Amino acid sequence: MFIVGELINASRKPIRAAIEAQDTAAIQKVAVDELEAGANYIDVNAGIFVGKEANYLKWLVEIVQEATSGAPCCLDSPDPKAIEKALSVHKGVAMINSISLEKERFQGLLPLIAGTDHKVVALCMSDEGMPETTDDRLAIADKLINGLVQNNIPMDNIFVDPLVQPVSTKDTFGIEFLEAVERIMTTFKGIHTMCGLSNISYGLPIRKLLNQSFAVMAIDRGLDGLIINPLDRQMMANIIAAETIAGRDSYCAAYLGAYRGGKLE
Amino acid sequence: MFIVGELINASRKPIRAAIEAQDTAAIQKVAVDELEAGANYIDVNAGIFVGKEANYLKWLVEIVQEATSGAPCCLDSPDPKAIEKALSVHKGVAMINSISLEKERFQGLLPLIAGTDHKVVALCMSDEGMPETTDDRLAIADKLINGLVQNNIPMDNIFVDPLVQPVSTKDTFGIEFLEAVERIMTTFKGIHTMCGLSNISYGLPIRKLLNQSFAVMAIDRGLDGLIINPLDRQMMANIIAAETIAGRDSYCAAYLGAYRGGKLE
Repeated sequence: MFIVGELINASRKPIRAAIEAQDTAAIQKVAVDELEAGANYIDVNAGIFVGKEANYLKWLVEIVQEATSGAPCCLDSPDPKAIEKALSVHKGVAMINSISLEKERFQGLLPLIAGTDHKVVALCMSDEGMPETTDDRLAIADKLINGLVQNNIPMDNIFVDPLVQPVSTKDTFGIEFLEAVERIMTTFKGIHTMCGLSNISYGLPIRKLLNQSFAVMAIDRGLDGLIINPLDRQMMANIIAAETIAGRDSYCAAYLGAYRGGKLE
Repeated sequence: MFIVGELINASRKPIRAAIEAQDTAAIQKVAVDELEAGANYIDVNAGIFVGKEANYLKWLVEIVQEATSGAPCCLDSPDPKAIEKALSVHKGVAMINSISLEKERFQGLLPLIAGTDHKVVALCMSDEGMPETTDDRLAIADKLINGLVQNNIPMDNIFVDPLVQPVSTKDTFGIEFLEAVERIMTTFKGIHTMCGLSNISYGLPIRKLLNQSFAVMAIDRGLDGLIINPLDRQMMANIIAAETIAGRDSYCAAYLGAYRGGKLE
């Protein structure tokens, strides 16, 4: 399971304030906490700062990698210019979040990824808008994956995000997504799937409960990447348990290790 | 979702003591609590009392139905004589837990169910022992369902239990079970599937965490019956959330109703 720590996002008030104040220590503390809690990538997002996004994103990458001995960042922007600037200082393999089938976005981001070792999140969105059904998602995923593979991006570097939509909008939005995960994972051998969780529970109370069920089901369907708050101990414990039940934990070793490390209570 | 309340089981010390003391009030309190917490059937089990099981089971049915205005019981015994005696006093439609493909058990219990309206749990166990793989389970389920249907037991009255085995014994026991649920539900239209949870986590710490993930995944695969402790509020909340995510909750009405009823916190 690839865990992307989602906390360093300027849409969160304390992060916005820390970025505006150029408070290196505050950002670095969050990055270190996420890494220690089990994040494999540290997401950095400065999207709310119109005109300054690229510079802030670059700065975030520099200070996050400085504090974490070069932990890989997940560069979170639809803007090729911001991604390019962030990549110019990023050490090692980054994750780019995200490309999509939207023409401008695809063509703008592709040159930055093609022929590199960088990972890329491929969001199932096109110029025709958001997909609703499993078939819609598969059709976009198919074109997106083909487009990436034809440009020398190996399957193993692609994380398809089938795009989560709220179950409060339509009863079947949960299962349409889950079936898409299963079909993408079985159709495209060696590919990864990834998503954030919170959209699923938009508009409903006690969202944590729904997010948790959704994560557990998605893991059962084959999802192997999550963009979450790794400091949420309950969610992290549920992910570990779900992987054990789903047969991905040889001899329950990860589960027992997490237990001994006090991570399950 | 059919919830069978599992608490009135003589293998639990307080229940054993209450049965021995013929403490009607103690048993009736548990039954009422289970019903109020959302149980659709009240399981009654007196299996540890060799020689006295049938009489105790009959007594349990009488006092449970007296206290609950005739809530249906789930008669939990492999012994046809005990089931027969309990049925002689049971009012309305009961659930019989459980028939299996073991020859003696099948032939002993069948006459009590054939041509009646009673529900029956069909456990995927045969004289060759416990199934290990999904295919093993399907093969047993197929024979069992055919045997029941040929004896005038409608699909809608059959709850197949694919038999849960501990993931600590073999990494794949979770997914073998889950795949069996999915295949049974899609192969035999109108059938139900049901299970208890606790075997999945046998031998591992923080079992609740594993049981919860397992229940959520099983619901996603189509499982529509659970034998659980309905007083476990966290488990019940997870089941409600899982059904919502799995697209079984029209307009999220059950989820919102549970929220307003204070059942999700």
